[in-house]
Amino acid sequence: MSVLVVGSVAYDGIETPSGKVDRTLGGSATYISLASSYLTDAVRLVATVGKDFAQEDIDLFKRHGINLDGFKVDENERTFFWRGRYHEDLNTRDTLETQLNVIEKFDPVVPDSLKGSRYVCLGNLDPVIQKKVLDQMTTPQLSICDTMNFWIEGMNKELKETISKIDCLIINDSEARELTGENNLIEAADKIREMGPSILIIKKGEHGAMLFSDDGFFTAPALPLTEIKDPTGAGDSFLGGFAGWLSKTDDLSHANLRRAVIYGSVMASFCVEDFGPMRFDQLSPYKISERYDEFRKIAEIPSSS
Amino acid sequence: MSVLVVGSVAYDGIETPSGKVDRTLGGSATYISLASSYLTDAVRLVATVGKDFAQEDIDLFKRHGINLDGFKVDENERTFFWRGRYHEDLNTRDTLETQLNVIEKFDPVVPDSLKGSRYVCLGNLDPVIQKKVLDQMTTPQLSICDTMNFWIEGMNKELKETISKIDCLIINDSEARELTGENNLIEAADKIREMGPSILIIKKGEHGAMLFSDDGFFTAPALPLTEIKDPTGAGDSFLGGFAGWLSKTDDLSHANLRRAVIYGSVMASFCVEDFGPMRFDQLSPYKISERYDEFRKIAEIPSSS
Repeated sequence: MSVLVVGSVAYDGIETPSGKVDRTLGGSATYISLASSYLTDAVRLVATVGKDFAQEDIDLFKRHGINLDGFKVDENERTFFWRGRYHEDLNTRDTLETQLNVIEKFDPVVPDSLKGSRYVCLGNLDPVIQKKVLDQMTTPQLSICDTMNFWIEGMNKELKETISKIDCLIINDSEARELTGENNLIEAADKIREMGPSILIIKKGEHGAMLFSDDGFFTAPALPLTEIKDPTGAGDSFLGGFAGWLSKTDDLSHANLRRAVIYGSVMASFCVEDFGPMRFDQLSPYKISERYDEFRKIAEIPSSS
Repeated sequence: MSVLVVGSVAYDGIETPSGKVDRTLGGSATYISLASSYLTDAVRLVATVGKDFAQEDIDLFKRHGINLDGFKVDENERTFFWRGRYHEDLNTRDTLETQLNVIEKFDPVVPDSLKGSRYVCLGNLDPVIQKKVLDQMTTPQLSICDTMNFWIEGMNKELKETISKIDCLIINDSEARELTGENNLIEAADKIREMGPSILIIKKGEHGAMLFSDDGFFTAPALPLTEIKDPTGAGDSFLGGFAGWLSKTDDLSHANLRRAVIYGSVMASFCVEDFGPMRFDQLSPYKISERYDEFRKIAEIPSSS
């Protein structure tokens, strides 16, 4: 089945304790699409870039079989640019420079040919834009939405309106607490699901992730990583892996949602191994399947006797 | 097989957002022994209390089949008393009162009849005392040690000396970071295992626990708890469940260490459901086995297809 991805396609400048890149492909929709493309062959990218966007990056998307019917180049603008520096612990970062450029007026139009996409991934964006995209779709099987504290704080009402319309929210632990005012994540999860989404995933970084759905609760492990080169895009890659697997299998059973969470975790774990989305240019289905099994292995609880 | 438990037996005054008790049985060795007693019938408690120690609490230990040959009542002293108040999030607490009393001169003597115990649990204590206990044992199959930031900060050299002698250390995440100066827990784990213990467990509270041994890595989930009445003793109960299972089975394979970690998590999850060790007076093997299966269920990763 097809998965439509809406979000930013950007250039990033990134400094981490492992090194520095001045300009690399970035943006939520980039990571979501690339991660997704390893699991399903029907990824559709809706995004707008500027005249400085490199042909080689368009070629990268094409090489990954990503449909670009909704991909626009605005010849009057430049591509969204972000530059930041991660702290030693990699959990926090400072933004050094933001040039909104083309993203400032981003108002995505979903081409008619893509409106019937079964799965919709709304990458981290202004919640009003997210809702406008959703309104353009016919009847998606599943809408999946990411957000961040910036929108929780600055556009709370609009964000809650969007959340009320979506099927699945993916959020991190501090965002879940901020959105609900609940410190206990289980109680926060209940409150979020009352807001609308029947499926909720709370990401906890090095502590894994939790899945809440009508049919059960699942706690997913994180791999024991020691060499994280660059955390940029890990959350988006999670979303891409999750949505890609669901789109491939078109099965929303609880067991298959668990698989999707692990595929999300797998893609996030690859993402951080190199700068920007570089790791996604050298992956193979075998590597992905091998890592899936690694997750199973480290979390397996033997029967009690 | 037998498990020897050394640590404090105390009275606690506890305030949490769920309520208050002025005086309840407490202390690391109390929780370890009681939790262990549900898994093995050969628990031996080495501790010293004062003249105010209630007969009904001695009866409680006896009812749980706990051997008290190494349990002393000092008629010239009072029992160690601690009073504290937990904050709203239950992760931090303020000590309101500490009366060291009998614990100040605690110098445990292991009776000859108990020196051959196969498993030794060193509850949180002055590391010099922990080592003195270890030196009295003949050849334990496994020595298991707990500690806390107080000793990491105040008696670092002595603590490292003790750690160099033990087989298994159980510690929480912030303590692991403090002990090693490593922020990444996987790297912290490597450093700790270089200090001596071949088996290491890092407890992460609501995020579960990690097991490191020569034969592999295991990440254990935490149950999604919303009603935590009193966190006191959760870590000790973990230790008790872990050691109790190993003592019962006398099997140090990696798979069985995983089971022991889950039994530890099970006993910790029961502990916090009521004030003090009260929950441990109303448990059954069936409840324990049922909860073990709950842990398996929430963490199960289906095969990839």
